[in-house]
Amino acid sequence: MFRAREAPFRKFKIIHLHFLSGTIHMTAKLIEGNAVAEAIRKDLRERISDLSKKGVRPGLAVIMVGDDPGSAVYVRMKEKECIDLGMRSKTIRLPADTSEAKLLGLIDELNADKLIHGLLVQMPVPKHIDPRKVIMRISPEKDVDGFHPVNVGKMLIGETDGFLPCTPHGIQVLMERHGIETSGRHVVICGRSNIVGKPMAALLMQKGKCADATVTVCHSRTRDMPSITRQADILIVAMGAPNFIKADMVKEGAVVIDVGMNRVADDTSPKGYRLVGDVDFEAVSKKASAITPVPGGVGIMTRIILMVNTVTAAERAKGG
Amino acid sequence: MFRAREAPFRKFKIIHLHFLSGTIHMTAKLIEGNAVAEAIRKDLRERISDLSKKGVRPGLAVIMVGDDPGSAVYVRMKEKECIDLGMRSKTIRLPADTSEAKLLGLIDELNADKLIHGLLVQMPVPKHIDPRKVIMRISPEKDVDGFHPVNVGKMLIGETDGFLPCTPHGIQVLMERHGIETSGRHVVICGRSNIVGKPMAALLMQKGKCADATVTVCHSRTRDMPSITRQADILIVAMGAPNFIKADMVKEGAVVIDVGMNRVADDTSPKGYRLVGDVDFEAVSKKASAITPVPGGVGIMTRIILMVNTVTAAERAKGG
Repeated sequence: MFRAREAPFRKFKIIHLHFLSGTIHMTAKLIEGNAVAEAIRKDLRERISDLSKKGVRPGLAVIMVGDDPGSAVYVRMKEKECIDLGMRSKTIRLPADTSEAKLLGLIDELNADKLIHGLLVQMPVPKHIDPRKVIMRISPEKDVDGFHPVNVGKMLIGETDGFLPCTPHGIQVLMERHGIETSGRHVVICGRSNIVGKPMAALLMQKGKCADATVTVCHSRTRDMPSITRQADILIVAMGAPNFIKADMVKEGAVVIDVGMNRVADDTSPKGYRLVGDVDFEAVSKKASAITPVPGGVGIMTRIILMVNTVTAAERAKGG
Repeated sequence: MFRAREAPFRKFKIIHLHFLSGTIHMTAKLIEGNAVAEAIRKDLRERISDLSKKGVRPGLAVIMVGDDPGSAVYVRMKEKECIDLGMRSKTIRLPADTSEAKLLGLIDELNADKLIHGLLVQMPVPKHIDPRKVIMRISPEKDVDGFHPVNVGKMLIGETDGFLPCTPHGIQVLMERHGIETSGRHVVICGRSNIVGKPMAALLMQKGKCADATVTVCHSRTRDMPSITRQADILIVAMGAPNFIKADMVKEGAVVIDVGMNRVADDTSPKGYRLVGDVDFEAVSKKASAITPVPGGVGIMTRIILMVNTVTAAERAKGG
């Protein structure tokens, strides 16, 4: 059956139609992060320039314990983004056997450092260090990851003077910039991690702009997950499992946000692997009205919101 | 059609069957709060007795600003519960024109008072006082209401060393004591307040006992709410609207938790009003497998969890 559908995008509305087994399939619009990130960078450069006139240069300190190669890549990318924006970047690489006490002491020093406005410890930390103690030790005013319980709590109760967690807030911004309306729509979130699923639900159930959604959270214990995911107007997937979401789990015309970032062995790639999301992109993109690619979708938003939070922290520190 | 249904209750399984318009209707099992509260009181008395041997008497301070009659009732009931359990109760009634500064100063005093383990300000406060400042000022270690952002945040990320909010955690305990399994079941929550809806969702989506549910949150902006509520294995309603949930919004055999507490004018009552919930009890109780009455269901659980939190606060203060 051929149905007219409302594509919720303001611009770049390119729809490819092709006829297949009696049904009209659309190729989904790509929800890409790069253009959004570039627009935000432009805005950030202005704010950084304003701060500069007041003698303030936003500074982000990143502590990395151990030498996990994945973490090393993320840390380098954060460093580069800071420097490109003209911010102060301080990266502290500590050996894997650094004691918890030493790490906590370093956090105390950076909490007190007036040149540093944002501070994070790259997760995961080695097993002998309690990540909860680390997160609790970072001053909430410098917790630009938005992981400190006081910032998490402010997010859930809808207070706006904390910091929002980077990935879920990045998804919110990504949807907003692509004109995807969430109000009154049914958002289904697959996954209940503290980094994505739970805060994503908390953000989208709030009153107001880019929120006001009916929100469902599914996870490994959910019975008959496809019956839930098929109801989603907007499906957000953060299960950490390649190709977890198949086409038959998605409603025709849904918006699909893939937060997965899985390394899959690939001999044809020079690195020996390629990155794939949690969604069977090829099949689902023929059914969804819009979908994020992996890479190129959500990933960059996490980093750019970290920069936004750091600039905000610098502005607040100056204001106080 | 007559179907065998599994009633999820361990005890007092009384099922009335009556034939009506071609369908077998069951009268729902009542999920009552009183017996559960009494069992918890018994446990609390033991803990209070143990503390007493260590020279500690749990103390709860309640501050009430103004003379809202509804609040006055709640405050008196908390006071009475404390005294009945052998705890220290300190109620401070302040005039409605008390300044914010004076209230915050009093909170500081009680935060420092070693005889007081739990501290709350009865909400709502008069309009010239910012409730957020009040909540932020209470020491998280004495925040037995579980409203401070740091306790809210700990709840969302699943840390267990904070305080859980009284009404949603009370509902969790009420379900547990009635043998209502939540794991893998679809819980639909109507309402997204900071006191019930949002924390209720946060608690039930966690991993572990009395949780692990698939959780949906609906609210005033939800499109076609009946299509969502009809999916609920467990329906929790906190909309603050009398008779909001009708029978056609409930799945046959669902568990229904009514958090509403609405005063409806009633000339036949000596008080001139009667209390009703958010659920059309008469109709829905013929369709649900279990339902909370109003009053007599959730209400008492809020107060009893407040007592549990205060005793826990005293134990932690002693332990530290």
